[in-house]
Parts: sequence; structure tokens; C-alpha cells
Amino acid sequence: MAKEKCTEISSLGEFALIDRLVKEFENVQPTTLCAEGDDASVSDIGNGKALLLSTDMLLEGVNFDLTYFPLKHLGYKTVTVGVSDILAMNALPERIMLALGVSSKFSVEALEAFYEGVRIACGELGVDLAGGDMAASITGLSVSVTAEGRASKEKITYRSGAKENDLICITGNLGAAYMGLRLLEREKQVLEGMDNPEPQFAGYEYLLEKYLKPRARKDVVESLAEANLVPTSMIDISDGLASDLMQICRSSHCGARIYLDRIPIARQTYALCEEMHFDPVVAALNGGEDHELLFTVPLGLRDRIAEVGGIDVIGHITSESKGAVMVTPDGSEITLKAQGFK
Amino acid sequence: MAKEKCTEISSLGEFALIDRLVKEFENVQPTTLCAEGDDASVSDIGNGKALLLSTDMLLEGVNFDLTYFPLKHLGYKTVTVGVSDILAMNALPERIMLALGVSSKFSVEALEAFYEGVRIACGELGVDLAGGDMAASITGLSVSVTAEGRASKEKITYRSGAKENDLICITGNLGAAYMGLRLLEREKQVLEGMDNPEPQFAGYEYLLEKYLKPRARKDVVESLAEANLVPTSMIDISDGLASDLMQICRSSHCGARIYLDRIPIARQTYALCEEMHFDPVVAALNGGEDHELLFTVPLGLRDRIAEVGGIDVIGHITSESKGAVMVTPDGSEITLKAQGFK
Repeated sequence: MAKEKCTEISSLGEFALIDRLVKEFENVQPTTLCAEGDDASVSDIGNGKALLLSTDMLLEGVNFDLTYFPLKHLGYKTVTVGVSDILAMNALPERIMLALGVSSKFSVEALEAFYEGVRIACGELGVDLAGGDMAASITGLSVSVTAEGRASKEKITYRSGAKENDLICITGNLGAAYMGLRLLEREKQVLEGMDNPEPQFAGYEYLLEKYLKPRARKDVVESLAEANLVPTSMIDISDGLASDLMQICRSSHCGARIYLDRIPIARQTYALCEEMHFDPVVAALNGGEDHELLFTVPLGLRDRIAEVGGIDVIGHITSESKGAVMVTPDGSEITLKAQGFK
Repeated sequence: MAKEKCTEISSLGEFALIDRLVKEFENVQPTTLCAEGDDASVSDIGNGKALLLSTDMLLEGVNFDLTYFPLKHLGYKTVTVGVSDILAMNALPERIMLALGVSSKFSVEALEAFYEGVRIACGELGVDLAGGDMAASITGLSVSVTAEGRASKEKITYRSGAKENDLICITGNLGAAYMGLRLLEREKQVLEGMDNPEPQFAGYEYLLEKYLKPRARKDVVESLAEANLVPTSMIDISDGLASDLMQICRSSHCGARIYLDRIPIARQTYALCEEMHFDPVVAALNGGEDHELLFTVPLGLRDRIAEVGGIDVIGHITSESKGAVMVTPDGSEITLKAQGFK
């Protein structure tokens, strides 16, 4: 018998892998509007409205390290991760569901701390917890979150709608969550084995909060609605600016030109990067887990975007042949690279 | 500092645990109709229709053993597990989403086999795959499935609607999936360490199929609709007849009286039980993973249920004070016990 072919997952990028896995699927439900390739799937619920659904998996040892990630924060962040995908479609989240795989090392009190964080995030966002599943695990904590939201069909913003000359907009700032993670990892190593570890976080509290307890940007989606602005494309920045901007380019068949000195980076991010001899622009481009929103609007809306506040214009959309590039202050161009599947 | 309180999860039942974790949550979304305590959550989508959502987590080493569970079958079964929760609300599934945690030991071809099984099940059920998530894992395969369906609000069947004297109905037969698992576990032990293992499955193919590739009973929900029958309560038999019937009793505040000699058990289940010196009634009551439907209908519908075909009436609903009991052929009564959280 011939040896079975065995291709390593890492030899394909994440997108190529998923494309290959789903290529033979055919959609048959007339209500399915968008099944693959965006932050959330979209289905028709009549009356001009659509339903958005997204699902995410968070695994202990990969997505979080419980030696420094408090369970209450993990519960909060789980909601942010789920809900951000709905917001990234310019829709408002209404419900989440949780499926947990829990090993016997967890106490009831530990689970209560997790759910307390979930409850706080749900309360802030006005989102209901709509059931879920609890399974035994032999390895650690597995968390799956499903988020559901609604929007008028004409307001839903896909990754595929960016047009040449559109402005590229960013909420908040980038790289802080990644530097929060770096700080936590550094203190874990330094203090390993100590009886009474006293980690040094003074001056970097904002970075820890951005990593451990990021807020979903529901406020931005609401502000855009109040200003009657509908972006042409949008994505949640979870993999880093470079990777997520390239997703927009890939889906919209366009290029992008962003300016290094316009990328919003927080003071604490600069400070810790200096201390750790790390390039803050790399943190912003490839760090990930910012859960800010990246979106595009037509060029003519520059003033109205400025009026909304809290949004930085970092560049513009170009033609597909120009690729995705970053312009440095001295005018040289760097081609952006996605981090891909880790 | 006082030592933190530490209650073991196993000291609470599954229901008591979930009740405790969600007791402080308040629902604020006007569209939320049913958030907890049923096979799926229910939300209003207008025009007299409702949306059903359910989520399940399947973990390697707990819910499946890849030494004998082919990935193609696992993909198929994942769809069945997800979709069965929607069917159990008397609704039709339209879409599923998958979130996978995959370690690097899996090849692209292995994932393709999994997705091939998903595609076959989706094709049979007319369900679309609507995106998902792919995460790296350090431990093994974690699968989360979210299923979505729709139904007219007045047709949705909750666990809570059973009334005294209602007939207790079962589709298919029970205990076969559990005996399929027992057979696979036996052959795994017998053949451990052998170079060319040749497991002995002859005569028990049906049991293997019920465990490895169970079909979701969409046909039953469609037949009930054609016959214009709406059950008073319904549940997917995933934890075993005893546990799932007690869920109906708990939600409907009623008791139940079922008759041992009416429980449908397949010939192969009897045969393997005899060979393994195992009580087939225990397999049916506590085995689980049957993914058949358990439902109740008013007493007057006995003839119409018989006309639908493939449905066994195994007893009737009683008052809450009488509890859930099984009557043996000699007329003695056995109080049913749920297996609870494993």
C-alpha cells in the first residue's frame, strides 16, 4: 500500500489551509448571505435585517497562560474576543454563548471568577449570555465563544468593500496588548520559583489592561451610526495591523499605503519598548490582540471622521498591483508581511 | 490571609454548577426569549419566527479517542451533535460553524478527512457551513460546533411543556451507540501493541455506526410537521434516557412512568450485551450519545403518533410528586437516577 500523503499544516498559510478545507462545500440555504471569509457569517432574517454569527476558540497554554491570567479577566476578555467580530461587521452584538472544557483542577470558585468576568463584560455591552455547554477536559481550560448580533443589511460592513483612495482608519492605539503580554512573560520568567513573587508592573498598568481586559469597541460602532457614517470595509485588529490590513486588501482586491508616523502608539507602549529594546512599530504591526477596529471610508469623509473623534487616519487604499506598503518618515517604502498561521 | 475556599466541581451536579455560575446574570435584550436550560437558546427574529442557537464542545481524550475514531466520522458526528440540539427544539437547522483547536501532529490530509465528514453530514441535512475559527493547540484536537436553526415561535418545543398523562415517545432505539463505544474500547485493549491489529467487529457494524456516525433525526422533525403534530416537550437523548427524561421532568415540574419492556433496543445491542455480560437496559438508560429524540404528546394523539411510524411510546407523564420511575415486567418500580456531570 502506498504511504499516505502527509502535508504539514505549517507549510500552508492559514488562509490557504481554510480555502483548501472548505473548497468543496456548497451552500444550499437561501438565507445564507455570507458564509466564509469575514469576521462573522451573515444570514437573512427578513425585514431588511441580517443576523451575524461568529465563533472563536481560546485554549490554555496557547491563547492564555493561567499562571498570570486571572480567570475573571479571562472571562471578560472572552466576551471581548467574541463580540469584536460582530462589531467589525458594523453590527451590534445581542447575545453570546459559551462552551467550556474544564479539567478537575478547577474549583467551582475558579469557574465563578471566570463567569464574574463574563457577567461584567456582558453588562457593559448590554449582551445576554444565552446558554452553552460545559464539558470535562483532561488537559486544561478550553473556551469557545459564539457571538450573535443584528444589523440592517445595508449597514453591514464586509472586508471586501474597500475602494481605491478610501481612507484607512484606526481606533485607539496599537501594540499595547502585545507589550502587556511581553511584560507578563518577562516577570513570569524573572520570578519563577520564588515563594513570594512581586512582579514589577508600575507605570505599565495600561498595557496590562489592554492585554488582560481589552474593551470591545461598541462605542465606535455606535458613534459611526450616530454620525450616519457607514464604512466601506472593516475588520477587528486581532492578528496585528499588517495581517488584518492585508485581509482587507485580499478581500477587496486592493492595495494599501500607510504611514509609519501616523500609526497610533500609546506612551506606555513606547516606554516599555525602549526598556526592552523592542521596536514599537513591530509591536503595532504584528503584535495582535488589540481588538481595535480597522476600517475604510471614502476620501470625502475625512472631516466627518475627524468630528467623530478617537479615530486616526493612517493612510489610504491603492490599486491591487501596488500591494500593501508602509511609508517611513524618510520616504522609503516597506512591503507589509502578514504573520500568518502561528 | 484566610485560605481561599475551594469547592470541587464534582461535588456539585452539572445543573447545580451551571445554576450557580449563571445565577447573577440578567438578560437585557428584548429579543432574548430563552437563554438557559434547554437544548438551544431562542431569540425573536420577528414575523412570528424565532432563531435557535446551540453550542457544543468535543475534546480529544474525553469525547473521542482518535486511536479508533476516524477523523471523517468525527467530522460527521460533530455536525450531528450540533444539529441535534436544534432538532430537539422542533426546529430545522440551517447553518453550523466550527471552531477547531489543532495541534501540529495533525496533517492537512487529516483535517481534510474531518472536513469531508462535515461536508457529507451538511449535505445530507441541507445545512451550510458558515465559517469558524482555527486555532493552534498544544494538547490535541478540540472541536466546538455552533448550530443555528429557525422555527415559527408557536412550534418551538421546550423541555418545560410536558403535562400529566402525556405520552412519552422515543425515536429509533437506545444503547447502541454506547455498546459501539464499549466494543471499540475492548478491541483497543485486546490489540494494544500488536503490529497488524485486526479488530473483530463482525455482526456489530450497526453499533459502530451508531457510535461513530450517528444520524441527526431531521426526518422525525419533518414527519411530525407533515402530520401537523407539535410535541408538548422534547429533548435530544445525548446523556442517556434516564438523565434526559429527568431533564424533561425537572423543566416541566412533572414525574414520569416508563415501562422497561417498551424501551426500544436493537438486536445487535442485545447480542453484544449478552457477549459482554452487560445489562442492555443499563446501556439504554445511561449509555448516552444515541442522538435520538425523546418527546411527549397529549394522550389523545396515540393513534396519530403510531401513523407517523418509527416512534415508540414507552410510558407517560405523571405528577411531580411521583418522581421518574421505570416499571419492570413483574410490576416492580425502579426510581430513575441521572448520571450527572462526568
